[in-house]
Amino acid sequence: MTDAPAETLRRQLEFLAELDALKSVLRQSPLANRSRRENSAEHSWHLAMFALVLAEHAAEPIDPGRVVALLLLHDIVEIDAGDAPIHATANDGTAPDRASLARASLARAEQAAAERLFGLLPADQGARFLALWQEFEAAATPEARFARALDRLQPLLLNTLAGGGTWTENGVTEAQVAERYGPAIRGGSPRLWQAAAALVRRHFAATSGSEA
Amino acid sequence: MTDAPAETLRRQLEFLAELDALKSVLRQSPLANRSRRENSAEHSWHLAMFALVLAEHAAEPIDPGRVVALLLLHDIVEIDAGDAPIHATANDGTAPDRASLARASLARAEQAAAERLFGLLPADQGARFLALWQEFEAAATPEARFARALDRLQPLLLNTLAGGGTWTENGVTEAQVAERYGPAIRGGSPRLWQAAAALVRRHFAATSGSEA
Repeated sequence: MTDAPAETLRRQLEFLAELDALKSVLRQSPLANRSRRENSAEHSWHLAMFALVLAEHAAEPIDPGRVVALLLLHDIVEIDAGDAPIHATANDGTAPDRASLARASLARAEQAAAERLFGLLPADQGARFLALWQEFEAAATPEARFARALDRLQPLLLNTLAGGGTWTENGVTEAQVAERYGPAIRGGSPRLWQAAAALVRRHFAATSGSEA
Repeated sequence: MTDAPAETLRRQLEFLAELDALKSVLRQSPLANRSRRENSAEHSWHLAMFALVLAEHAAEPIDPGRVVALLLLHDIVEIDAGDAPIHATANDGTAPDRASLARASLARAEQAAAERLFGLLPADQGARFLALWQEFEAAATPEARFARALDRLQPLLLNTLAGGGTWTENGVTEAQVAERYGPAIRGGSPRLWQAAAALVRRHFAATSGSEA
């Protein structure tokens, strides 16, 4: 072990340099102005702002700073494992057992990514970050449940702002939106789901006349 | 005043929707992989990660969560006022009095942007966010000084990773790097400046043979 201060800082800077790659991981969601798809780094910033702004609406008492940390970290594994779209298995005819295999394979890839990336850090710090990532994944705390609610609310808001976004692209119905976004958002904040459901209703009411 | 809960949430969601525009504000710094310039939203995420990872190196005792909040918020004014490059006045022959006028004009534009954007929020929350932005701008606290150090360290690291970045583009010398990045980084963390200065020395030593 050579975790002298200089070695600690060297490892931390190497980790921070590696993180730059998250800016090149593209999500399915469009920006509100529809100019391009969102990347996972700017998505994580937007989510952290959602946490700062909306903390008062959490269903359970939370530490907002912990929610912010969970959200800043939650997508880092995508540097190795890529983004997993909400509507990935909606239209590709994948049978349920194959979809389940794909989920298990993704979970393994994300676990390996977490170990490699957080393993770049000094051991104590890497273990703390890994535990935060696992807390988010497991929805194990009030903070993680609220963070996961925001992680569903943000792309929902972007889709309504962009005139449909991934819903239009994937032929997603209003009922499917409720099914795929509702449980996570309600689980962190019934009040936020109430507001989100109203935005969804308004979007589908406005577009129902203009689509097949 | 109609700040009932529903109106509070409506204003907060409007603010969060407006923030999406920060993803379209381009900075001068390249990504480490040189594929494109960085935008201010992903820059803000990266900085928040710098704060989580490097908090132990702050010169003064700090609350890391407060540093994160300052960094998440610090560039929001660029939605209206644009990004102000570090090396903007280096090569354009602008006389010092004109550069000073430009700085004053930018400061007014940023103040107006802060008032408009944070003014979208419920009054109490908007005032809290405005105060955080002003704290960062004024370098008024240990947290703000550390945040400002990171805001200089991150583009320095990107430039070294990208083989020169804005330094090469603007013909910036090693001495100018020390002058433009050193005081802010040293002011928040002498230890980080020591490490950064070593990266800068290595960069200029490696490139000095290959340039005119």
